[in-house]
Amino acid sequence: MTQRNVYISNMPLDEALKLYRAQLENPLKVENVPVKSTLHRITTGPVFAHRSSPSDPCAAMDGIAVLSDRTQGANEKNPMQLSEHEDYEYVNTGNLMPKDKDSVIMIEDVKPIHEGVIEIVEAAYSWQHVRQVGEDIIAYEMLLPSCHKVRPMDLGALISGGVPSVDVFEKLKVGILPTGNEIVQEFDALSRGKIIDSNSSVIEGLLIEMGCLTKIYCPCQDEPEALKAAIEKGLVENHMLITIAGSSAGAKDYTVSTIEALGEVIVHGVAIKPGKPTILGKVNGKSVVGLPGYPVSAFFAFEAFVKPLIESWHGQMDAMSIHEGVLTQRVVSSLKHEELVRVTLGEVNHKWVVTPLSRGAGTTMSLVKADGILTIPRLSEGIERGEKVSIKLLKPLHTLSERLVVIGSHDLLLDMIADRMPMTSTHVGSLGGIMALIKDECHMAPIHLIDEKTGIYNISSVQRFFPKRKMILIKGVKRLQGLMVRKGNPKAIHTFQDLMRTEIVFINRQKGAGTRQLLDYELSKLGVNSDQIKGYHREAVTHMAVAVTVASESADVGLGVYSAAKSMNLDFIEVGYESYDFLIAYEMLNDFRVQHFIELIKSPYFKKQMTEIGGYSLEETGDIVEIGEAYD
Amino acid sequence: MTQRNVYISNMPLDEALKLYRAQLENPLKVENVPVKSTLHRITTGPVFAHRSSPSDPCAAMDGIAVLSDRTQGANEKNPMQLSEHEDYEYVNTGNLMPKDKDSVIMIEDVKPIHEGVIEIVEAAYSWQHVRQVGEDIIAYEMLLPSCHKVRPMDLGALISGGVPSVDVFEKLKVGILPTGNEIVQEFDALSRGKIIDSNSSVIEGLLIEMGCLTKIYCPCQDEPEALKAAIEKGLVENHMLITIAGSSAGAKDYTVSTIEALGEVIVHGVAIKPGKPTILGKVNGKSVVGLPGYPVSAFFAFEAFVKPLIESWHGQMDAMSIHEGVLTQRVVSSLKHEELVRVTLGEVNHKWVVTPLSRGAGTTMSLVKADGILTIPRLSEGIERGEKVSIKLLKPLHTLSERLVVIGSHDLLLDMIADRMPMTSTHVGSLGGIMALIKDECHMAPIHLIDEKTGIYNISSVQRFFPKRKMILIKGVKRLQGLMVRKGNPKAIHTFQDLMRTEIVFINRQKGAGTRQLLDYELSKLGVNSDQIKGYHREAVTHMAVAVTVASESADVGLGVYSAAKSMNLDFIEVGYESYDFLIAYEMLNDFRVQHFIELIKSPYFKKQMTEIGGYSLEETGDIVEIGEAYD
Repeated sequence: MTQRNVYISNMPLDEALKLYRAQLENPLKVENVPVKSTLHRITTGPVFAHRSSPSDPCAAMDGIAVLSDRTQGANEKNPMQLSEHEDYEYVNTGNLMPKDKDSVIMIEDVKPIHEGVIEIVEAAYSWQHVRQVGEDIIAYEMLLPSCHKVRPMDLGALISGGVPSVDVFEKLKVGILPTGNEIVQEFDALSRGKIIDSNSSVIEGLLIEMGCLTKIYCPCQDEPEALKAAIEKGLVENHMLITIAGSSAGAKDYTVSTIEALGEVIVHGVAIKPGKPTILGKVNGKSVVGLPGYPVSAFFAFEAFVKPLIESWHGQMDAMSIHEGVLTQRVVSSLKHEELVRVTLGEVNHKWVVTPLSRGAGTTMSLVKADGILTIPRLSEGIERGEKVSIKLLKPLHTLSERLVVIGSHDLLLDMIADRMPMTSTHVGSLGGIMALIKDECHMAPIHLIDEKTGIYNISSVQRFFPKRKMILIKGVKRLQGLMVRKGNPKAIHTFQDLMRTEIVFINRQKGAGTRQLLDYELSKLGVNSDQIKGYHREAVTHMAVAVTVASESADVGLGVYSAAKSMNLDFIEVGYESYDFLIAYEMLNDFRVQHFIELIKSPYFKKQMTEIGGYSLEETGDIVEIGEAYD
Repeated sequence: MTQRNVYISNMPLDEALKLYRAQLENPLKVENVPVKSTLHRITTGPVFAHRSSPSDPCAAMDGIAVLSDRTQGANEKNPMQLSEHEDYEYVNTGNLMPKDKDSVIMIEDVKPIHEGVIEIVEAAYSWQHVRQVGEDIIAYEMLLPSCHKVRPMDLGALISGGVPSVDVFEKLKVGILPTGNEIVQEFDALSRGKIIDSNSSVIEGLLIEMGCLTKIYCPCQDEPEALKAAIEKGLVENHMLITIAGSSAGAKDYTVSTIEALGEVIVHGVAIKPGKPTILGKVNGKSVVGLPGYPVSAFFAFEAFVKPLIESWHGQMDAMSIHEGVLTQRVVSSLKHEELVRVTLGEVNHKWVVTPLSRGAGTTMSLVKADGILTIPRLSEGIERGEKVSIKLLKPLHTLSERLVVIGSHDLLLDMIADRMPMTSTHVGSLGGIMALIKDECHMAPIHLIDEKTGIYNISSVQRFFPKRKMILIKGVKRLQGLMVRKGNPKAIHTFQDLMRTEIVFINRQKGAGTRQLLDYELSKLGVNSDQIKGYHREAVTHMAVAVTVASESADVGLGVYSAAKSMNLDFIEVGYESYDFLIAYEMLNDFRVQHFIELIKSPYFKKQMTEIGGYSLEETGDIVEIGEAYD
């Protein structure tokens, strides 16, 4: 009687996978690939934009480009005639704006009088129907995070962002070694007692779908020396080897003993059916997986072990399904169209919250950032905040539930965190963040709100908005705010008073932004009427957007943080330090996502990054401040 | 002022797509591809197995092969010693069964005494732990339907079923033509006012994901003659051409007028946002789609029109999500394992019903047939019939809801119907079908149940099981039943009496099968005790399974229909015609799925197919017989 392997364990799936994963290092090296060849490849690090898109102001509509000042006074009663080349130029959507024009009037609103002369009946406002620099992509912003599988829509963002090539993981090379005396690979070789090898093709197909390079070897005889040689060869030529059949405890099942002789068997036998007699082995630091010979067992063992292993080396991205959530912002839509709104999703307090992304048709990034699509049917005027909606998912749901949902004020540090942990952040300013927190629409609100009496940041605002709720302020950073101007300060701007000069064009932040509050606070101290400032009503939603607007000469000055000014190579007139902190509900302090976040901002990595950027003080970062009483 | 196209319509999406689809013929020809190159290709017709799998009886366990008769009498008190080569041979899983052995005893139940002698303490029964011929795949059964995208698991079934090559659609060739004076394709060519072409790469990526061959052309200038030449060239070289930008009504939007000059504009302007200014055109019978230039508009217009159009030429298969349903059969599971059960889904009476498929680890086909996976956790004993379960879908849900759910007796004609309409059929015999209908677990039960008193088929059984419910019997076929024996009838079997001869091995159908009832009816007329028939308790679940068992000499005779005997080249001793009809609830008669079914069985196509097979009479096929009264 032949010798048989008798021992085979019954380890729970999770345990086996965890044990095995911990034993193996990621075998994949980094490869730099031209951007147009990156479809379905996986990024090894965050990818940043090289340039803004649009890179110059351009027409958002077909029509005429005008200087808005020139059109003031036109109305139904007093139509105004304009001359071509002198007062206006024809522009098509996407055309560069002429240097001396700041506004587009739609062709539908233009009445031709005769060749070279048209009439208008309404004044244009500044930047009307003009796509501003960086409206879609802002130079140096993060386009894709690490470990992201490049989808078709991502290609658009990379190319528009001027990224010539991308660092991606090399393709995993996997050898497939069928075993068994009875196995043949060609139909011609079939005879009584022989079995055609179908498993190798199935496993190869699954690997191809995961982006691997595959090689199927000739079936190996049930003979220890032959098997040893075949495994050794397969491991030299690949990152990983999968053997098929011979993984059990039968008389001719030599795989376990061979792997043991060459290296180490980490797991043999798992509590999954079908798929029990699986071998998870390691030889010379490389993975050797022995799949069972029964086709369904091989398939499920692959799905249970090989797939998650490769995914953990890669990161993952797939699937498409429908999921319900509650809308966090009102979405208005036209009756005429079915509208497709890109949204992000997050799970807050056992409820899925759906936040709309930018809706412009030119914003490639909204496709990249989107977790899903909300369809607003034709003949609907829109959907109210708080309503239940169905979302067509673009990403697997389980990757979304792990996310920290952040709504509030923007800072560069959020991008840095987002690359290190699952997170979605929406930038609606400090007050917008507090409102979202009141409605349980986010886990965390980054805020920087100054108390106009004491000059102390955040605490009094939290007390005012949450009079009966215990809250936690996670101390963030102190950051330097100041006026950003072009290099050399050509317009000699030094104080807030200078903003009132008529030749100075300002770019403001949106209502509810802490930076706008700071501006209003400074203006009120000076007794200045904000309407005297040209551009006060023009809004940008992030510090970087302000910096880009100034750098591209679309405005002369804006208020914002040092880091944004520095990254766009602008001069910076210091105004003072402000506290940028993170507000959460008291109950959320022990949430795994929040804990992960606190860990990250207290890490040496974070400190190093922020110091390199400059303009931040991190003395209290990660400290916990309790505000108010618990009432439950 | 330049001339502008002013008219652009606002057609609803569905209407536009329907109108456009109707104007175009499927441009794809058929290509025959070696089986191992068929991954992700789409079948043009049903694919049938060329051989059974396993093709010979083989061991399902590691152990010893014995003749079951030789082991009778062994028990704990009377252990039995057996000698190697004389009484037993060692076999491993997958090994051919020795010619004179019919049973396998697991190695764990074998006690070695000394070299060449072992002891057993339990008798083996016939076919114990033996994989029978055709257990996974039966020769000539349908492996894949038409318009099916080949997945990795499908490769396994095709190869196991001995299919050397497969007819698939040739790959769709699509040209992509970016337009616009400002568009450049390389970063080096960028200068002020130029825009890099990102759309073409996004659209190309989406097309590659659909299995198309793509070619991106150099950006075409906004110049009518250049555009005309580029469109003509693109159409000569491809099945379909997609132009990007210039699809609106601006001064330089020449696409509409150019397509109009070359062919026909079917739709210009659709009620979808973003994506409104889309052009759906036709030139020389080929599709030309003009996508808008804004990236997001181009993406959504592609998803809204190009994708469904190509899908309608291809058929489709993707997606992965979770769905709930009610289990129609009890599933027992071991506490030790997490078990993954392959299931089919169907929608019956606004309820999703989940039916488990074969659970053996060797059944590749269960993976191919599976609509989804039911996971039974470790430490669960199983799930009861009628319980709600969550299914991980392997196919898009909407393709499943269109399906006719059939549970009951099997006939070849069901395969033929299944290739022509969406349908899932489970073979549990006539009585099993009636039980499923009582519990609203299927739309239709195919039955052939003889009334032992009158000899009339089906009507009395329906009255007995549905005393208070109005039912409809859709008349099916009359089919010839008989005894199947090997060519030349080597064992001279002529009547049911012959089944009692000790050297004759019979193969029976499962309990509840109409054919088994017919056997019992004939045996009772003869006054025969069924236990006298060797093989009476051995069950096969379809006519083809019976025929394969006889053809492979694993049994000498079985009862079944002529068509099965003929397709396995067996001799056939006629027993008589029986009525094989389709039972539905009265309310289901006007269901679109049932109506589709009736149309099909009354069609000349069906008549022609059945006549070619032979052994069927179709005089009453499709006639409607009402049974019982309505009580609601």
